[in-house]
Amino acid sequence: MCLPFCVPGGIQNHGKAIAASKGYSIGKARWIRDEMNYSVIGIENVDLEWQRFQKAIESAKEELSLLKQKMETKLTDSELQIFNAHLFLLEDCAILDEVKEKLLEEKVNAEAIIDSVMDNYSAVLDAMDDEYMKQRASDLQDVKKLILKKLLRTGSVHHEIPDEPVILIAEDLTPSQTVSISTDVVTGFLTMIGGQSSHSAVLARSLQIPAAVGGGSKLLEIQDGDEVMLDGATGEFWVNPNDTERSLFMEKKRKYQLELQELEAFREKPAITKDGTRVELACNIGHPKHVDPVLAAGIDGIGLFRTEFLFMDRDDFPTEEEQFLAYKEVLEKMQGKPVIIRTLDIGGDKSLPYFPIEEMNPFLGYRAIRICLDIPELFKTQLRALYRASLFGKLKIMLPMISTVEEVLQTRAMTDEVREEVNAGPVPVGIMVETPSAAIMIDHLADYVDFFSIGSNDLTQYTMAADRMNEKVSYLSDPLHPSVLRIIHTIIQAAHEKGKWVGMCGEMAGDERAIPILYAMGLDEFSMSAGQVLPAKKQLSNLTKQDSLLLLDEVLKARTWEEVLQKIEYALKNR
Amino acid sequence: MCLPFCVPGGIQNHGKAIAASKGYSIGKARWIRDEMNYSVIGIENVDLEWQRFQKAIESAKEELSLLKQKMETKLTDSELQIFNAHLFLLEDCAILDEVKEKLLEEKVNAEAIIDSVMDNYSAVLDAMDDEYMKQRASDLQDVKKLILKKLLRTGSVHHEIPDEPVILIAEDLTPSQTVSISTDVVTGFLTMIGGQSSHSAVLARSLQIPAAVGGGSKLLEIQDGDEVMLDGATGEFWVNPNDTERSLFMEKKRKYQLELQELEAFREKPAITKDGTRVELACNIGHPKHVDPVLAAGIDGIGLFRTEFLFMDRDDFPTEEEQFLAYKEVLEKMQGKPVIIRTLDIGGDKSLPYFPIEEMNPFLGYRAIRICLDIPELFKTQLRALYRASLFGKLKIMLPMISTVEEVLQTRAMTDEVREEVNAGPVPVGIMVETPSAAIMIDHLADYVDFFSIGSNDLTQYTMAADRMNEKVSYLSDPLHPSVLRIIHTIIQAAHEKGKWVGMCGEMAGDERAIPILYAMGLDEFSMSAGQVLPAKKQLSNLTKQDSLLLLDEVLKARTWEEVLQKIEYALKNR
Repeated sequence: MCLPFCVPGGIQNHGKAIAASKGYSIGKARWIRDEMNYSVIGIENVDLEWQRFQKAIESAKEELSLLKQKMETKLTDSELQIFNAHLFLLEDCAILDEVKEKLLEEKVNAEAIIDSVMDNYSAVLDAMDDEYMKQRASDLQDVKKLILKKLLRTGSVHHEIPDEPVILIAEDLTPSQTVSISTDVVTGFLTMIGGQSSHSAVLARSLQIPAAVGGGSKLLEIQDGDEVMLDGATGEFWVNPNDTERSLFMEKKRKYQLELQELEAFREKPAITKDGTRVELACNIGHPKHVDPVLAAGIDGIGLFRTEFLFMDRDDFPTEEEQFLAYKEVLEKMQGKPVIIRTLDIGGDKSLPYFPIEEMNPFLGYRAIRICLDIPELFKTQLRALYRASLFGKLKIMLPMISTVEEVLQTRAMTDEVREEVNAGPVPVGIMVETPSAAIMIDHLADYVDFFSIGSNDLTQYTMAADRMNEKVSYLSDPLHPSVLRIIHTIIQAAHEKGKWVGMCGEMAGDERAIPILYAMGLDEFSMSAGQVLPAKKQLSNLTKQDSLLLLDEVLKARTWEEVLQKIEYALKNR
Repeated sequence: MCLPFCVPGGIQNHGKAIAASKGYSIGKARWIRDEMNYSVIGIENVDLEWQRFQKAIESAKEELSLLKQKMETKLTDSELQIFNAHLFLLEDCAILDEVKEKLLEEKVNAEAIIDSVMDNYSAVLDAMDDEYMKQRASDLQDVKKLILKKLLRTGSVHHEIPDEPVILIAEDLTPSQTVSISTDVVTGFLTMIGGQSSHSAVLARSLQIPAAVGGGSKLLEIQDGDEVMLDGATGEFWVNPNDTERSLFMEKKRKYQLELQELEAFREKPAITKDGTRVELACNIGHPKHVDPVLAAGIDGIGLFRTEFLFMDRDDFPTEEEQFLAYKEVLEKMQGKPVIIRTLDIGGDKSLPYFPIEEMNPFLGYRAIRICLDIPELFKTQLRALYRASLFGKLKIMLPMISTVEEVLQTRAMTDEVREEVNAGPVPVGIMVETPSAAIMIDHLADYVDFFSIGSNDLTQYTMAADRMNEKVSYLSDPLHPSVLRIIHTIIQAAHEKGKWVGMCGEMAGDERAIPILYAMGLDEFSMSAGQVLPAKKQLSNLTKQDSLLLLDEVLKARTWEEVLQKIEYALKNR
C-alpha cells in the first residue's frame, strides 16, 4: 500500500516531519486524540463488548433524561425537544445495528467502532456546503463524545499500560501531556502541528525522547498499532517498514547509541574549550523532580526554572506555601549552585484552566509580566514565596516578557516591598530579553536589573514576526537568521558595556550550530535542556576563541540564513 | 440611572474609550451586530409587523423542510430528526406567543423582539455550567439567526436610511463595514474592542469620522436610540447627556470647527517648515475613489495604496484585468505624481472569505509577502497588472511584511520575469519596514530594493510584542515608546548611509507629536490619512531643523514613554 505521504520514487510509507528531538525510536503507533484517548484494540469476546456498548448507551440516555427532567420546569417545550432529538439519536436503530454489524466483522473495541460510524455520518453532513448542515454534523459529534465518555468510564481496555513500546501520535501534545509521558513505554512522539521551538518539541528534548513535530495531516494515515520507526534527528518516519528499511534504521540507531556512550566521557567534566576557557553551563527545568537528572549531567546551575508548571493541572492558583516549598526544594537540591527562577510566564501558548484568556494573538497579548503587574496580589504571592525560599540557596529572580523600563521599575518597587515584609536579604533580579524592545533598551534596563538572560525562542519569534508554533512560517523560526544573530550580538555587547552578566536560556543555547557563535559573542552562561549538556560540552571542547571569533565575524556579515548555515558548516568542518 | 461605567464622583452616563479619530459627534446610538444588522425602531401598525414576522417564520420553515426533503434519502432517521427539532422550535407556541405579547407591549420591530426573546431563553441555558446545555443555547441562536435572516430579507424597516445623525456602536467594525459607512448620516462610531492603530481606527481617521475604540463591554449598556455624544479626541462619550454636559460639549465642538477652518489656509500650500524646508507629504488610500478627496488636501503623492480592498467583498480573487483597471485609474488620477502601490497584504487581521486562514497568532503567521511567495500565480497576476499599469503614471511597487533578504531576492526574480512578459519598463521596487528583522538588515536589503517605507503600526507591534488590536496591551502600542523611536532612527540612518529614500506610511507619520522627531531624523516622506494632512502642514510650518534636532537628541536618551511624551510637550510649548 502506498500511503499519500510516499516520497515519489522513494521508499514506501516513508514521511518527513520537522525534527524536534534527536534519537531513534521504534514502536507501535498510539494516537492521542483530545481527551477521548483510546486505542484500537482487538476484541475476543464480541458479546461482552456489545454489552459494554449497550451499557454506555443506557448510561448516556440516563444522563440526558435526568438533565431534561431537571430542566423541565424552566424551559419551554421546544427547548426540551432538543434533548429529545439527542435521546432519539441514542435509540436510532440504524446506528445501533451498524455498530453491532461492525463489531462482529472487525472485532475491535466499541470506542473505535462508534467513532468511525458516527464520523461517517457526520462527514456526509459536513461535506455539504451549507452552514446549517455543518452544525448538525457537530450535533452528531456531541452525541458521539457522550457515548465515548461513557465507554471510557466503564472498565475499559484503553487505560491499561501497553506492554510494548509505543510511539505517541497526536495533533499536538499539551505541556502537561508531554510532562506526564512515561518514558518506560513511550519511546517517541510525532505530532501534526508545531515547529522546532514549540513547547512539545522543547519538552521532548528536555525529557530526551525522540520526537518530530509539524508532520501535518499525512499522519492521519497512520493507524493505531502500525509499527512506526522515528528518526528524531531528521524528522523522518516509516510506517510498517520493510526489512531493508528496518535494518538501515537499526544501524543508525546503533551508531547513535555509540555516540551517546562516547559523550559519557564528558559527564563528570566541566565545560572547557580547546584553549582552556571554562564555560558556565546550566540547565532549564520545569519541575523540582527534574533537578536530580540534570545534576547528573554535571552542570553549574539552573539557568531557568519555569514556575508555570506549579500552576498547571490544578483548579486554582497555588498558595504561597506550596510555591515556597517547591522553590526551597530546588534551591536545597542544588546545594549552593545558582538557580534562576523565572516568575510566572502564563498566557501566550500556556493557559491555565482557572484563568482563561481569549485573544486574537496570544503571543502578542496579555502574558507573563503583563499579567503579574496587572494582578499585584498574584505576583506578590509568588515574590513572597521566592524571597522566603532565598534563604535556602543561591536564588536569582528573573522576569519574563519585559518590554519597557517602566515594567522593571514597577516590579522593583514590589520586590522591595515584599523583601521587607518577609525580612529577607537582597536577591539578584534580572530580566529575560525576549522582546526586540528590551534588546534595544538594554543600556537603560541595565541600570535597574542585576543580570540578563536571552530568551532566544521568543526573541526570534518577535524579531522575525513569525509564530514559532506555526509550521507554515517555521522557515522563519530559526535563531540562526542573520537578523537574530545581530540582535543577540548587540544585546551582549550593550550589557557587557554596562558590566552586566548575560546568559541565554532559550533553545539556541544548546544548539551545537549556535554554540561557537554565542561563545565568540562572549555569552556568560549557556542554559539548555538536560539532553543537550553532554553534546554541548563536547562541542565546546573543540572550540578556540580565535576560530570562533573568525566565524562570528563571518556570520555577522551574512545576508541570508543559508549563508549563515554554510559558514558554520564550513568552520566546523575545517577547524 | 447610573450606568456601570459612571466615573465615581463624576458626571453621570459618562465613559471613556480609546481615542481613535478626532472630532465631535452627537447622534442617536445605532448598534451594528454581526451581519444581523438592524435597529430598534418603533412600529405604528402592530398587525402589519406581526404579519411580517409570521411570513418570516413560514419562509424559515419552508427552507428547513425543503432541505430536509432533499436530504431524506441520504440520511438516517436520527439525522433528519435534528431538522424536526428545529422545525418544532419554529412552531413553538410559547415563543410565538411571547413575541406577539411583546409586539403589542413594546411596539418595536420584530427583529428586536425575536432577538431579545430568543436571547433570554438561550441565556438561561448558557448560564448553566454544562457544555451540553451551552451547545443547546447555540442551537437556539441558530434558529434565531434563521428567523432574523428571513425578517431582514422581507421588505423591512432597517435598511432605510435614518433621517437623523447616528453614532454606530459595534463590537468592532470590519474594514469593509468601515469603508461602506455613509458619512452623510453616520457622524461617528464607538467600538468595544481594538486599539488606536486597529484598522477601524485607521480608517476612521482616513474617512475623517470622529471615533473611539476599545470601549469594552460597558458599551453594551447603551441602547439603540440613546442620544450619544462622542469626543474623538479624548475617547470620552456621554449617553443621554444632561443640559450642562451638552452645552460644554457643543462649546468644544464649536472650538474644534474653528480650528478646522483655520487649517483651511494650509490646503493650497505645500508643506514647508518654519525655516523654509519643503517636506514631502503624501496620503494613504484604500480605494481609487479616495484619490479625489486626498488630492484636494494638497499632497505630493500617494505613499500607500492598500490593494487588499480590491480583494474584499467578493467571492474570488480579482482578475489581472480588474486589478489593472484599478491601478491605472489611481495612476491616471494622480497625473504624474508618485503612487506607491503595496502588493497584497492579507492575513493578520485581514482575511478574505474565499481564502480562509486559521491560525493561533495571525499577526505572526501566514500573511502578506509570505502568502504571495507561497502562491506565485496569485502574486504574478498582481505584478502583471502593476507592470501593465505602470505606463499610466509614476508607479512604485512596495512589498509588505519583508523579514529576510531571501524574500526580496525571490520577489525580484518574479518582477523581472513579469516585466519581460508584459514588456514594461523598470518600476522602482521597495519594501515596508515593519518587522524588527527588516530593520536590522537594512544595510543588506538596501542592495536589492529601491526605497523603504516604515510601517510604524506593525513595527511597533512586533518591537513591543503587543497586538495593536488588543486593548489589554494598548499601553504598549504607541510608537513613541523609546525603543520604537530608536529602531526607526537606526532604520533611517542605515538607509541614508546606503543612499536610499525612506518614507513612512504608518499612522505615526500623521501624528502631530511624532512629526518633529521624524523630521529631525530626516524622514524623506510623510504619508498619512487625508484628515491628518492639514494639521501636519500646520505642525511642520512651526518647526525648525535646529529645534527638532534638539528634541530628537532628548527623546533618544529617554528611558520611558512618559519621558518621551513630556519632552515633546515641553519642546512644542517652548518653541
